Amino acid sequence: MCIFCKIVNKEIPNYTIYEDDQVLAFLDVNPTAYGHTLVIPKKHYESFVECSSDDLNHVMEVAQKIAKKMQENLHCDGINILSNVGEQAGQSVHHFHVHLIPRYKDSDVIQIEFNPIESVDFSEIIQKIGF
Amino acid sequence: MCIFCKIVNKEIPNYTIYEDDQVLAFLDVNPTAYGHTLVIPKKHYESFVECSSDDLNHVMEVAQKIAKKMQENLHCDGINILSNVGEQAGQSVHHFHVHLIPRYKDSDVIQIEFNPIESVDFSEIIQKIGF
Ligand SMILES: [Zn+2]
Ligand SMILES: [Zn+2]
Ligand SMILES: [Zn+2]
Ligand SMILES: [Zn+2]
Repeated sequence: MCIFCKIVNKEIPNYTIYEDDQVLAFLDVNPTAYGHTLVIPKKHYESFVECSSDDLNHVMEVAQKIAKKMQENLHCDGINILSNVGEQAGQSVHHFHVHLIPRYKDSDVIQIEFNPIESVDFSEIIQKIGF
Repeated sequence: MCIFCKIVNKEIPNYTIYEDDQVLAFLDVNPTAYGHTLVIPKKHYESFVECSSDDLNHVMEVAQKIAKKMQENLHCDGINILSNVGEQAGQSVHHFHVHLIPRYKDSDVIQIEFNPIESVDFSEIIQKIGF
């Protein structure tokens, strides 16, 4: 059983922000910012990609409500909403979760960096994705 | 009118991945990785926080479908799903958008870095968020 399933089953304690039948939101115990929160479906899905639409909708709805609370009550100056799929993208726990990371002015927490890449053939990418 | 509203209105061209009445997905013209895609509601919302639940659901549903296509057809090894709220979090265009950033093995694109912060009083944070 994965560590988040154990948290859902109360085998491992957690700092709960919100809980209902479908979703659990709790503080990340290795926070990257003050108030760093994780929102997960109680059902185990490997990642964002595998999540059912019903669970995905509810996870995002709860994430949005918590983000509003962060603005109102933590007085953060920004929030990153992030989900990583696969280890190459930084996913360490393989149970779908959304990170809510409040950002504060004058904080020394680094921003999420975007490195531009070399120019690419956009039409080729569209064909490749093949939607 | 914001730059993404202009893209929705076809005043500025875009590399469309997917489009319907409610949602547009297109390639980021300053890609941070091969296939870097943005998914937006056609309606203007300042950020993730302000988006209606109906538009949010549909944006995330389309994001998930594209993420699957990226795995299948771009053969990426990971994906970051990211939305930034506020300039302090790196939001540059103030029209809600979700970044889908494919990650590849042996790529020199940096990963999203998490800097741990000093230990904090978790119970205090929960009280402060006040959900
Ligand atoms: Zn699990
Ligand atoms: Zn994570
Ligand atoms: Zn707009
Ligand atoms: Zn952006």
